[in-house]
Amino acid sequence: MAFQQQLSVVTLGVADLIRSKRFYVDGFGWRPVFENEEIVFYQMNGFVLGTWLHDKLAEDMRRPLGVGRAPFSLGHNVRTREEVRPILDRLAAHGGTLLKPPVEPPFGGLQGYVADPDDHAWDIVWNPGFRLGDDGSVTFGV
Amino acid sequence: MAFQQQLSVVTLGVADLIRSKRFYVDGFGWRPVFENEEIVFYQMNGFVLGTWLHDKLAEDMRRPLGVGRAPFSLGHNVRTREEVRPILDRLAAHGGTLLKPPVEPPFGGLQGYVADPDDHAWDIVWNPGFRLGDDGSVTFGV
Repeated sequence: MAFQQQLSVVTLGVADLIRSKRFYVDGFGWRPVFENEEIVFYQMNGFVLGTWLHDKLAEDMRRPLGVGRAPFSLGHNVRTREEVRPILDRLAAHGGTLLKPPVEPPFGGLQGYVADPDDHAWDIVWNPGFRLGDDGSVTFGV
Repeated sequence: MAFQQQLSVVTLGVADLIRSKRFYVDGFGWRPVFENEEIVFYQMNGFVLGTWLHDKLAEDMRRPLGVGRAPFSLGHNVRTREEVRPILDRLAAHGGTLLKPPVEPPFGGLQGYVADPDDHAWDIVWNPGFRLGDDGSVTFGV
């Protein structure tokens, strides 16, 4: 069994969006494709970089903010609702730790989290609002 | 001034490669594009995912392994040697912290690390061995 070698979103937890934007927008010179009061998205080369308030990200992952650890997550998008649970189950059976069983997030779709053996969190997502190309490339779909 | 919205490599620190491969190779079913005794690379959608022994990664970043924090880094590749230092300097001037000034790594090229305001490490790299497309896509070049 093989799932696509695909990553849709890298989400970095940040304490302060203004401070973070100074680095990404003024430093790198990158332009957000979407932003609100808690998250900023940047369209990258075939995937999306998100900077999200770290307490919101921790809550979404169902994993408390650790001492000295800035949270982040890696997104793997799938094409149908039915694919989410089997991937989470399979990863949990191969050394992963289920952090959050599949739930329907506010933006629609279906989403769950599993940590790899070193505690790196993967967000397995069916999100009908994301355009997913055949090669796994993701374009922010707003 | 704006640099390309580009990420070349996501590198995850891992304690044990065999244990990590059980998750990525047997769980996700992903196929490495390169591996040796300390690192495994997976070709993703336009960039590369690396799993690297965490003490090696920490040493490369010049940042000690933190308690409870699994290290990771994000790579931003550039096209010429001359671009590396100005980007590091500019990011450090916009809330970043220089972790490692530009040095020549064993694989050639030029590389330095800067942490964003939330301590997420960016590896700014000129690596002639990586194929970098116009859109910023990276293909592992061995």
